[in-house]
Amino acid sequence: SKRYSITLLPGDGIGPEVISVAKNVLILAGSLEGIEFNFQEMPMGGSALDLVGVPLPDETLLAAKKSDAVLLGAIGGYKWDKNEKHLKPETGLLQLREGLEVFANLRPATVLPQLVDASTLKKEVAEGVDLMVVRELTGGIYFGKPRGFGTNEDGEEIGFNTEVYATYEVDRIARVAFETARKRHGKLCSVDKANVLEASMFWRKRVIAIAAEYPDVELSHMYVDNAAMQLVRNPKQFDTIVTNNIFGDILSDEASMITGSIGMLPSASLGSSGPGLFEPIHGSAPDIANQDKANPLATVLSAAMLLKYGLGEENAAKRIENAVLDTLNKGFRTGDIYSAGNKLVGCKEMGEEVLKSV
Amino acid sequence: SKRYSITLLPGDGIGPEVISVAKNVLILAGSLEGIEFNFQEMPMGGSALDLVGVPLPDETLLAAKKSDAVLLGAIGGYKWDKNEKHLKPETGLLQLREGLEVFANLRPATVLPQLVDASTLKKEVAEGVDLMVVRELTGGIYFGKPRGFGTNEDGEEIGFNTEVYATYEVDRIARVAFETARKRHGKLCSVDKANVLEASMFWRKRVIAIAAEYPDVELSHMYVDNAAMQLVRNPKQFDTIVTNNIFGDILSDEASMITGSIGMLPSASLGSSGPGLFEPIHGSAPDIANQDKANPLATVLSAAMLLKYGLGEENAAKRIENAVLDTLNKGFRTGDIYSAGNKLVGCKEMGEEVLKSV
Ligand SMILES: CC(C)[C@H](C(=O)O)[C@@H](O)C(=O)O
Ligand SMILES: CC(C)[C@H](C(=O)O)[C@@H](O)C(=O)O
Repeated sequence: SKRYSITLLPGDGIGPEVISVAKNVLILAGSLEGIEFNFQEMPMGGSALDLVGVPLPDETLLAAKKSDAVLLGAIGGYKWDKNEKHLKPETGLLQLREGLEVFANLRPATVLPQLVDASTLKKEVAEGVDLMVVRELTGGIYFGKPRGFGTNEDGEEIGFNTEVYATYEVDRIARVAFETARKRHGKLCSVDKANVLEASMFWRKRVIAIAAEYPDVELSHMYVDNAAMQLVRNPKQFDTIVTNNIFGDILSDEASMITGSIGMLPSASLGSSGPGLFEPIHGSAPDIANQDKANPLATVLSAAMLLKYGLGEENAAKRIENAVLDTLNKGFRTGDIYSAGNKLVGCKEMGEEVLKSV
Repeated sequence: SKRYSITLLPGDGIGPEVISVAKNVLILAGSLEGIEFNFQEMPMGGSALDLVGVPLPDETLLAAKKSDAVLLGAIGGYKWDKNEKHLKPETGLLQLREGLEVFANLRPATVLPQLVDASTLKKEVAEGVDLMVVRELTGGIYFGKPRGFGTNEDGEEIGFNTEVYATYEVDRIARVAFETARKRHGKLCSVDKANVLEASMFWRKRVIAIAAEYPDVELSHMYVDNAAMQLVRNPKQFDTIVTNNIFGDILSDEASMITGSIGMLPSASLGSSGPGLFEPIHGSAPDIANQDKANPLATVLSAAMLLKYGLGEENAAKRIENAVLDTLNKGFRTGDIYSAGNKLVGCKEMGEEVLKSV
């Protein structure tokens, strides 16, 4: 039987609750496919700050690097919001992404027929939405230098950051995006602001260059402001979107909200080699932490992405995806996706119901 | 009788058609309030490129600077899309904003009861939306230096831009935003990415400092990714939003699409002194240019903003706003906002109908 080591990073808020559910689902789906897991739970985010004073302890990064895949719950909370930058939970997450070199962030936004009413968009606009945002995750303005605070020529205080992309950075994310589009519906839309920014003109140039390797994928370009509009106007026009770190942050969150059920949405962050990082796109929701109210399905589906994209275990992944659909079909709903006529359950019970269908 | 000089910049695509309507509406509304206008029409954008080879001729900027207010139609089109940066219509627009020092861009997004069905959002989510985005327009990554192309330490090609804000830049836009919020419902939400970017941390620090001058305005802060979600989830939570140039570009377009009727939305760009720049937020729509199909109401409402914010002529502005509402109440609709049971009209006829109600 196959054996994988998984680093679990429960993190903060509802993180531990949803990770606990996803872990059980992984164990069962694995065992049915002849897969065993070694889990190692490590501190990260606000809880690591409380424990050892840094948001990403060296031991955590080391364990993550040595494992076959990393599953993260959620990080952050009011408690640490005012911390200095290097002591913010978010900084730990950025360090983890950088440390694992996971430059490609895959964020699906899918409207399930069972949950179409959860969207604030009209049914005819929301139903059938099934898009994937491929976000560059370890470059751009998030990491660009110089950055910081200083004074300008007039002696005025300033704060500044650098948006910068190099050839290899655009090329590798473009390749991931073209590969992703190829496995989906063969349409890739690259989003930039090439009518204003040199970094975007450069991005577009490299995406066009890489397109030559993928003649079977239909490439289009869209300005980021228009993309933000088109996601609201007609999200079904999109198959795969590729964009830089900051635009990807904004657009993937917008796309996820269009589905109306961000408690359902997983994500995968992948590098060229080494373990991938898998996490729900929702946050740590401190207001409902420890109340057994969280929706664990985004993390369960992140575990499915872990199996599929991280370990190449498609069968075990499919088991989990199907189990989630079955559970929804049976009418089980956590509060965030509840609608009349369904059965309201807590985080744990939702987990138990999924286990029954794995 | 009062006399103002107005620079008209029809621009490209549908620009000339909508400017022609707005000009007639201005003349009539002005004459009824004892106001006369001198109009000077100047080339700008793609049409200036075709005429004299630059997107913003010196004469145009000079005329604009000398006038009391500037009304712009729209610029851009496929024809010039592949031009080098300094020969893009968009570059002319950025030069105009910079030349006029109009650092404060006010972009209302209002869902009129008559047009609530035009939104892709569910009626209960869309109805009553009435928010204002105050976007910083002459700073940040649009203008920050250094910018350009080069090579990094490894000899790799790069493209880069600088996001930078100085104290006076944040302070002045914050003051405009607080004043705006004060005249509206007293709620200001400052949008940034202060959990990652130093430029945003600096932005937030200055906004908080300026807040001390406006104890009557309720200030909140939101990360840009969350703001992109909240605009979809519950746009009614917002009164006034203030944000930087690039986030404002994205969020104001998203907000405008949430109304479903971007053919209706005006904007004002204001400096500390000197003429303001007024323009519809929609683009030049080359596909429907010269077909008498454009919706002139966004430009007509921009003319109303010109009267109100540019010239302080509130009565004439109110005349125009009311005339637009009357015309909608009578059921006149251009194609972009048409729904069954209403009267489909072209650009000219819509203009004539508005004139009847001024
Ligand atoms: C927490 C924050 C640093 C992070 C980001 O901006 O990347 C989050 O918004 C995300 O999208 O994963
Ligand atoms: C045309 C372009 C340069 C411009 C901008 O990005 O500011 C436009 O999108 C806008 O919002 O007015």
